Amino acid sequence: MAVEKIGFVGLGIMGLPMAGNLLKAGYELVVWNRTTSKANDFAANNPGVSVASSPAEVAEQARVIITIVTDSSDVAQVVLGENGISSGIKEGSVVIDMSTISPAVEKDLNVLLEEKGCSLIDAPVSGGDVGAQAGTLAIMAGGQRTDFEKVLPVFEAMGKTITYCGPVGSGQLTKQCNQILVSMNLNAVCEAISFADNNGLDPDVMISAVSGGAAGSWQLSNLGPKIVEGDYEPGFMIDLMQKDLKLVMETANASSTQVTGASMVHQLFNSAQGKGLGRKGTQALFEAVSGKD
Amino acid sequence: MAVEKIGFVGLGIMGLPMAGNLLKAGYELVVWNRTTSKANDFAANNPGVSVASSPAEVAEQARVIITIVTDSSDVAQVVLGENGISSGIKEGSVVIDMSTISPAVEKDLNVLLEEKGCSLIDAPVSGGDVGAQAGTLAIMAGGQRTDFEKVLPVFEAMGKTITYCGPVGSGQLTKQCNQILVSMNLNAVCEAISFADNNGLDPDVMISAVSGGAAGSWQLSNLGPKIVEGDYEPGFMIDLMQKDLKLVMETANASSTQVTGASMVHQLFNSAQGKGLGRKGTQALFEAVSGKD
Repeated sequence: MAVEKIGFVGLGIMGLPMAGNLLKAGYELVVWNRTTSKANDFAANNPGVSVASSPAEVAEQARVIITIVTDSSDVAQVVLGENGISSGIKEGSVVIDMSTISPAVEKDLNVLLEEKGCSLIDAPVSGGDVGAQAGTLAIMAGGQRTDFEKVLPVFEAMGKTITYCGPVGSGQLTKQCNQILVSMNLNAVCEAISFADNNGLDPDVMISAVSGGAAGSWQLSNLGPKIVEGDYEPGFMIDLMQKDLKLVMETANASSTQVTGASMVHQLFNSAQGKGLGRKGTQALFEAVSGKD
Repeated sequence: MAVEKIGFVGLGIMGLPMAGNLLKAGYELVVWNRTTSKANDFAANNPGVSVASSPAEVAEQARVIITIVTDSSDVAQVVLGENGISSGIKEGSVVIDMSTISPAVEKDLNVLLEEKGCSLIDAPVSGGDVGAQAGTLAIMAGGQRTDFEKVLPVFEAMGKTITYCGPVGSGQLTKQCNQILVSMNLNAVCEAISFADNNGLDPDVMISAVSGGAAGSWQLSNLGPKIVEGDYEPGFMIDLMQKDLKLVMETANASSTQVTGASMVHQLFNSAQGKGLGRKGTQALFEAVSGKD
């Protein structure tokens, strides 16, 4: 299908720039946002955007509908709730949920959408608001491969590394693996810097000595120097990481998977939240690891 | 000083190719090895190599003496033992210890060498035997900066990333930070692959989806695919990593530094050793993390 008009539900810190990149790529948009003023502002500033009165109306006007909201319950609400997407959706439509939520919820939603001759792709992203603005997000997609291929140009307007990960839920599972790796690698950086500090070793020198080899990681190169400077400005906030790690723990529990390291970092982030650092960048984990503040 | 002849003590799996690279760079060598036949073989095949009868004789014949042996006790033995380096060393000489041992021992040895008008550089390496052969080792050096600058051409014959880390012991401390990062990042990779496996996600797809972003690490890109294939051939053996992590724990204890994550991986490697995997590559940590075998 040639997609010309896209439905877009959720114009938050991520959704707004992503919608902007779809416009730049030449798509028309019909949008809905819980806070209506944001949708109205977006439409006022951008020809090619119309505002719907409900998610149902979005679904009536577009065959591809993107949702990017906060929690599993928010996605369930905009899809299944009163005047939700499922009450307006036309047969053959595809819902792309780009929120980071439970893979089990995505599977359940897909079953309900399939009863209406529609389908769901779960496609969470990584790369933060900077990646959303630049159109360089990593997009991890789960669903039917044929659906994925149909909407690939839509993804390409918003992201750079776009991966088909498997059946519905696989995008979310891949995002969860991403967060396991991110948080544990960050914990490693915090321990190494604390260890250097406590033993009179210049942490900046240590970082430059080891980051090109087997110890290297994105977290070390990008967040290590910020930790050394005490710069806790958020790229990605601890509160959001904790939301994601809770999803990791749910999946680990449901599949009897031991994730001891990720669980430990989850607890250390709890400690950081207890120190009032929830809205700081994830690198403020250092305060919980080092015991310094 | 223009270094022409270098003393070299320890022609093991690392030392032998490193000595070979010094020869290629035009240095003469006087060597000693605990197993004499190895030294004799090396000299027989390489003009420019002479074999000394003891570490003391090595020190009598060269102003720069490299040691690369196994443990703190081995270094102490070749430097301070009967017919050790310190009994033959000439004033103004520099001992470069490239073993991975205790930073406290390096400091003690330096004090004793300074009494003889000499000094020590601790310069452990990373990059394994492959890096030793290719001359691409990372070299992390601690000692007086003037000494470091004098012997830099010697390092450049053996390594690629060469970093002056600070006073004596700083090379070892940097290597310990390196091993904290390596082992914790590897643990992250093991958990993510186990998590993917147990939830029906293709681990290879997961790795390719996330390795270019914030979850990326050397361990993920290089050891992740080996874990998925079940390839446990050693790049770096678990037994050797455990030796290094014991040193990390000593330093952490001495400096009251909490390294909870590194300590946990140390225990998981114990479990892998208990399964008979000590001589496998570090990636066999996966067996202890996943509970599979």
